[in-house]
Amino acid sequence: MNNDPITQLVVDIAQRARRASLELATLQSETKNQFLHDLADLLIAETDSILKANALDLEAAGLNNLSAPMIERLTFTPERIIAMSEGVRQVAELPDPVGNEIERMSPPKDFDLRKIRVPIGVIGIIYESRPNVTIDCAILCLKSGNASILRGGKEAFNSNMRLAEIIQDTLRANGIHEDAVQFIPTTDRQALNVLLKQDDTIHCIIPRGGESLIRFTVENSRIPVIKHYTGVCSVFVDSSADKKIAESIVINSKCQRPSVCNAAENLIIHEDASDQLPTLAKALHEQGVELRVDANSKAILASHELPLVDATDEDFATEYNDLVISIAIVPDLNCAIDLININSSGHTDCIVTEDKSAAQKFLAGVDSASVFHNASTRFSDGFEFGLGAEIGISTDRLHARGPMGLNELCTYKYIIHGSGEIR
Amino acid sequence: MNNDPITQLVVDIAQRARRASLELATLQSETKNQFLHDLADLLIAETDSILKANALDLEAAGLNNLSAPMIERLTFTPERIIAMSEGVRQVAELPDPVGNEIERMSPPKDFDLRKIRVPIGVIGIIYESRPNVTIDCAILCLKSGNASILRGGKEAFNSNMRLAEIIQDTLRANGIHEDAVQFIPTTDRQALNVLLKQDDTIHCIIPRGGESLIRFTVENSRIPVIKHYTGVCSVFVDSSADKKIAESIVINSKCQRPSVCNAAENLIIHEDASDQLPTLAKALHEQGVELRVDANSKAILASHELPLVDATDEDFATEYNDLVISIAIVPDLNCAIDLININSSGHTDCIVTEDKSAAQKFLAGVDSASVFHNASTRFSDGFEFGLGAEIGISTDRLHARGPMGLNELCTYKYIIHGSGEIR
Repeated sequence: MNNDPITQLVVDIAQRARRASLELATLQSETKNQFLHDLADLLIAETDSILKANALDLEAAGLNNLSAPMIERLTFTPERIIAMSEGVRQVAELPDPVGNEIERMSPPKDFDLRKIRVPIGVIGIIYESRPNVTIDCAILCLKSGNASILRGGKEAFNSNMRLAEIIQDTLRANGIHEDAVQFIPTTDRQALNVLLKQDDTIHCIIPRGGESLIRFTVENSRIPVIKHYTGVCSVFVDSSADKKIAESIVINSKCQRPSVCNAAENLIIHEDASDQLPTLAKALHEQGVELRVDANSKAILASHELPLVDATDEDFATEYNDLVISIAIVPDLNCAIDLININSSGHTDCIVTEDKSAAQKFLAGVDSASVFHNASTRFSDGFEFGLGAEIGISTDRLHARGPMGLNELCTYKYIIHGSGEIR
Repeated sequence: MNNDPITQLVVDIAQRARRASLELATLQSETKNQFLHDLADLLIAETDSILKANALDLEAAGLNNLSAPMIERLTFTPERIIAMSEGVRQVAELPDPVGNEIERMSPPKDFDLRKIRVPIGVIGIIYESRPNVTIDCAILCLKSGNASILRGGKEAFNSNMRLAEIIQDTLRANGIHEDAVQFIPTTDRQALNVLLKQDDTIHCIIPRGGESLIRFTVENSRIPVIKHYTGVCSVFVDSSADKKIAESIVINSKCQRPSVCNAAENLIIHEDASDQLPTLAKALHEQGVELRVDANSKAILASHELPLVDATDEDFATEYNDLVISIAIVPDLNCAIDLININSSGHTDCIVTEDKSAAQKFLAGVDSASVFHNASTRFSDGFEFGLGAEIGISTDRLHARGPMGLNELCTYKYIIHGSGEIR
């Protein structure tokens, strides 16, 4: 037995979460929703104390010379607290996923067998500098009947601790097990290592953050991890693509919000549609997009006075998160599918075509979580899919793939109502 | 780069499986079913060569003094080969899960968004001495559109190699990518370690075997593992239980086939039903079942001249796989639920009661994959559930829980048919 204090602390948190999870699994929807509304109220009422805790984090961030985008992510304002509170109320309004009948089975013997949606149990969330993730994840886990253990980044430690106190006050006030949401009250790295070994009590780990955080988690976890890797998304303009649709989808997929995972990084064009490339390239350039071109697209664009960069093979597997796009010409649909399956991160890919059989082939052949025909990659999103909320977009294949809402925070059980049946 | 031959061999197998999986994902049902029928034929035609390979394994088993049950599991006979061949034909008859619409979504913007069942990709199966697992797993993976990599136990190496050759001959004859099913042609332990690190190309690992094999896999795998741990199943006889139903379910759950994971190991009785204990205990004793009793049940049974063993706490968390049962008396339903949630392996548990609200509370409160009201635990099985086949019974919570059929060997993707929608 390891008796050091950090190990004891984390093991104890995990065991308490497991006990709380058994209570949470059968909690009434009304109780959960009342908790959420009360939490929304308390976040507003506690604006000053949240900003005060946040000021401590911002002061430390200044002393540690954190980058401007990092400080931006870390900062609370009264407006952001109002938005966070409204987000909590929206989750209260969503239907409760727990107890839903997923399927009525047809067993050979005629007993009543059903597959019912139930919570996963205990979910560990590991995240970085945004303190609002504390609230987002806690409420989605609670609404779906899961206990959560939150491990935030050290930059937001004071903000997170204050938010965790507010959550626990609201849990107690609503008579819900206070271990239903726990925040790990130390920034010690060892706590994370211990957390990832508690596979007897924690059922799922969701890392929310950059690639190095996710890789560290996968390397060190004995608990199943649902990964949200990067989005290397492609738009393929097929030979029969409608020119207007192609232009609006390419521009929207790349430019509407280039910093997010469902923005397009690659433009792939069928050689029979290569006459569309100059128009598309100009439109992208006008939006400030840097064009990284393969040899064929470079040749086509040579006479168009656009600034071009030679694309490397690696570029086609790169998430730029910025106004940059890689462009390739391919001889046919199969080559486009292969290029995507080799380079894509399995997130979201799109074909623009008027040819239904080409669309069908692309939709079946591209091995990604979301595959679209004539629609912007930017639709790959929990809210746009109608899930009402989103804890992330999984690039994993098991359990949850693509946008994860409340249903994806659940598992299922089989239930028989029998009348004495035996084998 | 590690250049040793075992690493190269396994990395190459995994990469070839990944390429094959992209082809398999869009294979027509007819092609897959023709392969299965041809395989069934070839297994029969190759009975002699299979028995010859099997004889080499049996000879080695004799030299290595393997136990009688181990040799029994290892042995092929003409009858067993016929049964294996018939199993292959049964899978050919099952509906193809790939491409099924799981859900038509309701996005806020009115495009056509569907959730479609697709193969997982590449599945690694790690198993022990039964060579028929080679065929079982290969055909279930192939029918569900997955490439498989098989790693069998060294005791059955020659039998497995012969079966793998027969599978690959049949793949080639049907024009299916021959890397769709690969067997790892070495018993070197390092091959397993390398296999479990190929998370870029292998998407899921299913260990089929004892607890130590599963633990080793979980400890060493970077790939998600679907675990099939033991079954510590309980039958709870509630205060209002019908006496006849209680007796037949207790006897059937414990005795019909005690060596399997869905057999009951614990009998828990509400103290208001403790007058049923002597009858139940006598019936179990008549079936040859050893009775391990807690203090209260011991007191009740003291005057009934039955051989009793004192149960330890650990007994209630033990899978006997044998004619042994642990018996406890509890003061109420909540205590029964707690006892099960603490000790059960989350496999299958049953309540016998005439009280519908007690049943509902038990079904909701017991955190196991299958929870039954008035039905034998022995029904927790892919065939009894109507899945038509079963690769195992998952005690995991993510992706697949309980009996795993062809659907559970699939994941899903989201597909949009749009008409130029942008955000």
